[in-house]
Amino acid sequence: MKFKKMHGNGNDFIVIEDLNNMFKGKEAEIALKLCHRNFGVGGDGILLVRHCKEADIEMVIINSDGSFASMCGNGIRCFAKYVYDENIVKKSKINIKTGDGIKEINLIIEEDKVKEIIVYMGKPSLKPSDIPALSEDIIISKSIEIEGKKYEITSLHMGVPHTVIIDRLDKYNIEEGRLIESYSIFPEKTNVDFCEIIDRKNIKVKTWERGAGATLACGTGNCASAYVAHLLGYIDNEVKVIVDGGELKVKIEDQGIYMIGNAKDVFEGFFLMEY
Amino acid sequence: MKFKKMHGNGNDFIVIEDLNNMFKGKEAEIALKLCHRNFGVGGDGILLVRHCKEADIEMVIINSDGSFASMCGNGIRCFAKYVYDENIVKKSKINIKTGDGIKEINLIIEEDKVKEIIVYMGKPSLKPSDIPALSEDIIISKSIEIEGKKYEITSLHMGVPHTVIIDRLDKYNIEEGRLIESYSIFPEKTNVDFCEIIDRKNIKVKTWERGAGATLACGTGNCASAYVAHLLGYIDNEVKVIVDGGELKVKIEDQGIYMIGNAKDVFEGFFLMEY
Repeated sequence: MKFKKMHGNGNDFIVIEDLNNMFKGKEAEIALKLCHRNFGVGGDGILLVRHCKEADIEMVIINSDGSFASMCGNGIRCFAKYVYDENIVKKSKINIKTGDGIKEINLIIEEDKVKEIIVYMGKPSLKPSDIPALSEDIIISKSIEIEGKKYEITSLHMGVPHTVIIDRLDKYNIEEGRLIESYSIFPEKTNVDFCEIIDRKNIKVKTWERGAGATLACGTGNCASAYVAHLLGYIDNEVKVIVDGGELKVKIEDQGIYMIGNAKDVFEGFFLMEY
Repeated sequence: MKFKKMHGNGNDFIVIEDLNNMFKGKEAEIALKLCHRNFGVGGDGILLVRHCKEADIEMVIINSDGSFASMCGNGIRCFAKYVYDENIVKKSKINIKTGDGIKEINLIIEEDKVKEIIVYMGKPSLKPSDIPALSEDIIISKSIEIEGKKYEITSLHMGVPHTVIIDRLDKYNIEEGRLIESYSIFPEKTNVDFCEIIDRKNIKVKTWERGAGATLACGTGNCASAYVAHLLGYIDNEVKVIVDGGELKVKIEDQGIYMIGNAKDVFEGFFLMEY
C-alpha cells in the first residue's frame, strides 16, 4: 500500500488513496497507528482520497488522535495537489467534498506543475452569536484584561472561533493564547491570533489553536487575521501572511475570503508495518 | 533516492545507503532536513550505511540536531537488520564499525527473517572516575537528598554515565530525572533510570536521558538498570526489560552485558523533497 507525505506550511499529512473504501470504519484505528511519529509514518493527520457522486472527489480528514475533521485549509491544498499530480482529477478547477460541504479549489498550473492553490474559505462573521461569544455588541478592538495584562481583541467566526490581537509580536508570548482561549466570554473557547502589521501588503501571524496550542500554520487563523487587519484599515485587500511554517496569500473580496498558497511533496512510501 | 524508516522500541531512524559517500561532509545538513517531523521524514536520527575496510560495514549515526553519535543500542539493531534484509551483509555475525569502535552483532535468523539481534554492550564500571562522579567511594545504594526528596542511587558508566534508582515507579515522576541529571557530584551530568523489579526475570525501566529528557527507550539505560538490579541481588542474570516503547532482554555475563532485542521496519520511501 503506497502513500505520499505532504505538508502545507508545515501542517503535515499522510495522503492515502482509499478508492475502494478499504479503510471504511477503520479510519480512527489507522490514523492513530500511522500518525504516530515514532512507531508510524508521523503526521498531523491522514487525508483519504475517496470517490463520491456529489463532487469530483471526496477528502476525508482524520486527525492524529483518531477524530474526524470537517475541513482544513492546509490539508485541502495538499489534497488538491495530490489528486492533480496523481491524475485522479486532472482539472484546474476541482470540487472537493469535505465534512464542511463541497469546496471549489482553483489550481494555477504551469507546465503541468501546480504553482498555486486557491481555496475559497467562506465569509467571516463578527456576529457574537455566530462566534459564539457572550456579548451584546460585536467585539472589535475591545480592551480586556486577563491576569493583569491588557489585550485589545477582535473576535469573529472564520470557520471556527478566532480572536485576533493586532500588535507587535514581541510584546506577547504565544503561551498567553492559553489564557485568552478560555476567556469567560467564549463558551466554546477561541483560537487566538497574534498579528503584526509589516506594511500594507505583509503581515506576520502566530496562532494559538484551541485544543492544539501553538502550531506552525493555521489556515483559518491567517484568514481571520488578514480580515481584521483589513477591517481596521491597516492593510490592502490582498496580503502576504508570514507564519512560522511558511507563507501564503489572503485575498478579501465582497463574496468572502480566498486563501492562496501551495503544498509540498516530502516523500512517497510503501508501508512495511502492519496497519 | 530511497530510504527505510525503522525503529527499535520507538527510537526511530531513517536508514540511508550512502555506499558512494554522496553525503560526506553534508551529514549535519541532511540530518537536520530529513529528521524534521513536519517538513522532512521525521526521526530521532539518520543511520548512513557506508563501506569500510576495517569491518563488514560502517554505521554513521547523525542525531536529529545534526551532531554525530558514536554509538546507539537501538540504532545498531535497526542497522544490523537493514544490512541483512537488503543483502548488503548477508551473515548472521556482523562486524559493524561505529564511532565507538567495531561492534560484533549476532543475528538470530529463522526462515531468512531476523528474529533477534544480540548486541555486546561492553562492561559496566562502578569506578567513580570512569562515570565520572566526584566521589571517593563507589556510589552504590547511596542515599542523597534533592529539593527535600530522598533518592537511593547507584551510579555507573555503561557507555555513558547512568544513575539507577530501584524502587516502585509510581513513587516518582520522570521529570525528577531533570534534578538528578544535574546533581552536583556528576561533572558531565548523568542519565537517570527509574527501575521497578517485577520478579526475578522481569523489570520495568523509565529513563531520563541527559540532554534529551524522557525517551521511549534507552538501550544503555536498560543494561545499566539490569546490571544494578542483578548486582543488588534482585534478579537473575537474564531479564526482560519493559520500557515505554517496547521490551528487550538483557543478559549479564562475566565478559560484559548483552542486549537482545529486535528492530521494526515501518516503511520504505523515496524522497520527493529537495535535500
